Amino acid sequence: MSKGITSRSTDYSAWYNELVTKADLAEHSDVRGCMVIKPYGYSIWEKMQQVLDQMFKETGHSNAYFPLFIPKSFFSKEASHVDGFAKECAVVTHYRLKEDGNGGIMVDPDAKLEEELIVRPTSETIIWNTYRGWIQSYRDLPILVNQWANVVRWEMRTRLFLRTAEFLWQEGHTAHASKEEAIAETVQMLNVYADFAENWMAVPVIKGVKSANERFSGAEDTYCIETLMQDGKALQAGTSHFLGQNFAKAFDVKFSDKNNTLDYVWATSWGVSTRLIGGLVMTHSDDQGLVLPPRIAPIQVVIVPIYKGDEQKALLDEKVNTLVASFKAAGIRVKYDNSDNQRPGWKFAEYELKGVPVRIAIGPRDLENNQVEIARRDTKEKTTISMDGLTETVHNLLLEIQSNLFNRAKQYRDEHITKADTWEEFVNILDTKAGFVAAHWDGSPETEDKIKELTKATIRCIPLDNPLETGKCILSGNPSTQRVLFARAY
Amino acid sequence: MSKGITSRSTDYSAWYNELVTKADLAEHSDVRGCMVIKPYGYSIWEKMQQVLDQMFKETGHSNAYFPLFIPKSFFSKEASHVDGFAKECAVVTHYRLKEDGNGGIMVDPDAKLEEELIVRPTSETIIWNTYRGWIQSYRDLPILVNQWANVVRWEMRTRLFLRTAEFLWQEGHTAHASKEEAIAETVQMLNVYADFAENWMAVPVIKGVKSANERFSGAEDTYCIETLMQDGKALQAGTSHFLGQNFAKAFDVKFSDKNNTLDYVWATSWGVSTRLIGGLVMTHSDDQGLVLPPRIAPIQVVIVPIYKGDEQKALLDEKVNTLVASFKAAGIRVKYDNSDNQRPGWKFAEYELKGVPVRIAIGPRDLENNQVEIARRDTKEKTTISMDGLTETVHNLLLEIQSNLFNRAKQYRDEHITKADTWEEFVNILDTKAGFVAAHWDGSPETEDKIKELTKATIRCIPLDNPLETGKCILSGNPSTQRVLFARAY
Repeated sequence: MSKGITSRSTDYSAWYNELVTKADLAEHSDVRGCMVIKPYGYSIWEKMQQVLDQMFKETGHSNAYFPLFIPKSFFSKEASHVDGFAKECAVVTHYRLKEDGNGGIMVDPDAKLEEELIVRPTSETIIWNTYRGWIQSYRDLPILVNQWANVVRWEMRTRLFLRTAEFLWQEGHTAHASKEEAIAETVQMLNVYADFAENWMAVPVIKGVKSANERFSGAEDTYCIETLMQDGKALQAGTSHFLGQNFAKAFDVKFSDKNNTLDYVWATSWGVSTRLIGGLVMTHSDDQGLVLPPRIAPIQVVIVPIYKGDEQKALLDEKVNTLVASFKAAGIRVKYDNSDNQRPGWKFAEYELKGVPVRIAIGPRDLENNQVEIARRDTKEKTTISMDGLTETVHNLLLEIQSNLFNRAKQYRDEHITKADTWEEFVNILDTKAGFVAAHWDGSPETEDKIKELTKATIRCIPLDNPLETGKCILSGNPSTQRVLFARAY
Repeated sequence: MSKGITSRSTDYSAWYNELVTKADLAEHSDVRGCMVIKPYGYSIWEKMQQVLDQMFKETGHSNAYFPLFIPKSFFSKEASHVDGFAKECAVVTHYRLKEDGNGGIMVDPDAKLEEELIVRPTSETIIWNTYRGWIQSYRDLPILVNQWANVVRWEMRTRLFLRTAEFLWQEGHTAHASKEEAIAETVQMLNVYADFAENWMAVPVIKGVKSANERFSGAEDTYCIETLMQDGKALQAGTSHFLGQNFAKAFDVKFSDKNNTLDYVWATSWGVSTRLIGGLVMTHSDDQGLVLPPRIAPIQVVIVPIYKGDEQKALLDEKVNTLVASFKAAGIRVKYDNSDNQRPGWKFAEYELKGVPVRIAIGPRDLENNQVEIARRDTKEKTTISMDGLTETVHNLLLEIQSNLFNRAKQYRDEHITKADTWEEFVNILDTKAGFVAAHWDGSPETEDKIKELTKATIRCIPLDNPLETGKCILSGNPSTQRVLFARAY
């Protein structure tokens, strides 16, 4: 089969790359580090956007749009932000091209910018510079704004969806009159992300807080949802930052409260990106291709007719068109592929590769017997069932697939949270079983750095519901009050 | 009134700038030429996106995403494209910043790109470079792809929405096996734009073709919809280009047809941008603020309660909540503003400024009399009407406002298409009445250039349904077969 892909057990990384390309999700472009998101991949992103956008609006947020470019000097204003973001950036230095006299074009040296512009790697600086003009009093608060945008971080080693120079994301930026309200917002948006990941993407998450080393540059606290891929590596799927008054101070954003006292404004920011698509692929898919959870699948059901000649086709078309109308009326995203250019076997493989949750095959004998063949993508089970009540049967099957995928992923994830109490155990788990390792840590950034250096594992998070437990740090032996989750990560 | 704006008759340009800012649509950012689209302005863009996206999908298109950056050399590949676009561009030359040793940051001179990257001013080059890998045979065609994206064209003189360095748009890029099919696509998308402008934005358009001077750089033919603003200046609201085989040749994109003969692929591209918001504002709004057509208005109906004390408020809240539920059930976008922080008079002015089509005021006596006061934004008429059947009344009123706005704009537009048969008449109309001038032109780019130089008027389009008529060119006196539409334009 021309679309065959490397198996996961042979080479997980090759499997992922081939799958993303062959299933028409994305491809590398001729521009270093930038990807092309193909229509099928983009339709998954659109579905994600649509659901998340609705969730943001239900929690009171509005969308807005801020400039792509950020003056270089803005980055120096928030001391820790500059360390994190003013490094691998795309820098605009000129604003004009001209003919080079040899039929080509060159950068016009006369058109040099006085101050270089940075293509936004994230927008806290430009947004807080803008909020200064929007906020005078507590009546102007809260500001609950989100932006859907492209951002650029110059990455040397890129992976489609997981790490590219340019990617698409949303970034929420909110401003509040009190610390409590800002923290509540941070936690609320973390919960929105967790809800979306678990109930739409069928990806189980661990909600937690980052250690100082892994914190967003400029944040007081970074909350995150952490997920586990099928190769035992962790993937950070979304972050929500409590920014304290750091950006308000850097950009001089003050408000007068009800007593006319001036104070700096409290801030949050939160984001998820097209990286979610990578996480979705690596959580559920198999050696035959994508496996998409029904709630996020662009096509939930594909119907493939099996026939010889136009007469049989016409009979099938007539019946299937009725089914399609009934499916659509029930809100099911269905595609009837009666195209002539490929045989049924090719189509079966193609829709398996594309991860369509349910496939229905129907031929002349099925028509006679008032039945169809249904194949589930998640378990690959096939059954022959009656056409009576088919819409409801399929509707229920989609629900079952959705929950099966979540449960399967959750079982895998739960089986891959392993306690380690000695350094030997710790290293051994990372090298053999992988997954999350729950181990004691003395709380110091230096120890975390050392562990990363020795094992490539980082602290993924300190879970929000973490039980307290006295113990000794896995590396230093110093006292610790709780286990944290380590893993090698994407 | 603090939110008062300059009147149109005093200074149309100042009126526009103040209106856009004070109605919270957009503002200038601290980044030269880039705007911030504020939540209220963005909500209009979202509505436009939603409707257009649906129209694109109904005509068979899918969305995708291509890189923000385009290698400099790509622009030189299509000879006329380079003239049009490889000029005022944002050029990325470096990919890293570093500390400058004085607490600031500087561009790292060691991180210079081998080939500069241009921030896309339009994406034909990067997309056709990608399509080369997607197209082998006629079976791969047509490709019907659209992209929602930001683009950058370094403009020296900027106006919010009308001309900014960065703006948001959609760009469709399609690939076809035949010239006829590509032309049909070009015309189809022009019709989609015209439909959207007239039936949603209530903006009447003239569909036409551009003269060679005004054609998109790289197109064989540029189709456009032209609109007229209240100051008599024209605004190009959307364009659809038949690109012939120009980009296929430049990027070597060939396909084999059913007979296995290789040929270059035929192309179209088409786009509308956030400029539409500027056109919307300048078509309908008045000295009190925005006037939004109901179908595109983020809020269609605002309800303002008039009361003294909590008891009256509670009674009104109870009644209005029922009304709101009924409006929502009928698909009406309604807002109940019972906030305590401003008086009714302030709210009336505020929603007038924001262009909400229908305002309903309700007080205790109205409750007693089972009536409300309704104010139309378009005509400023107020009437007192019964609450019985209010939802239907409002629904019908919204339809009436929508068609009234269109008819009003169309009447103004039609009254401002004036024939000129002498140069004196031509100049006189431009300087006094303004609007479109229908005049004979000899068809030469030189004459068009000369007319532009002398009057600042350009040929806006040659209308698609133009009657043939022999005459003499307004400037050169050379023979002409039809009148074309001239105007001064945004």
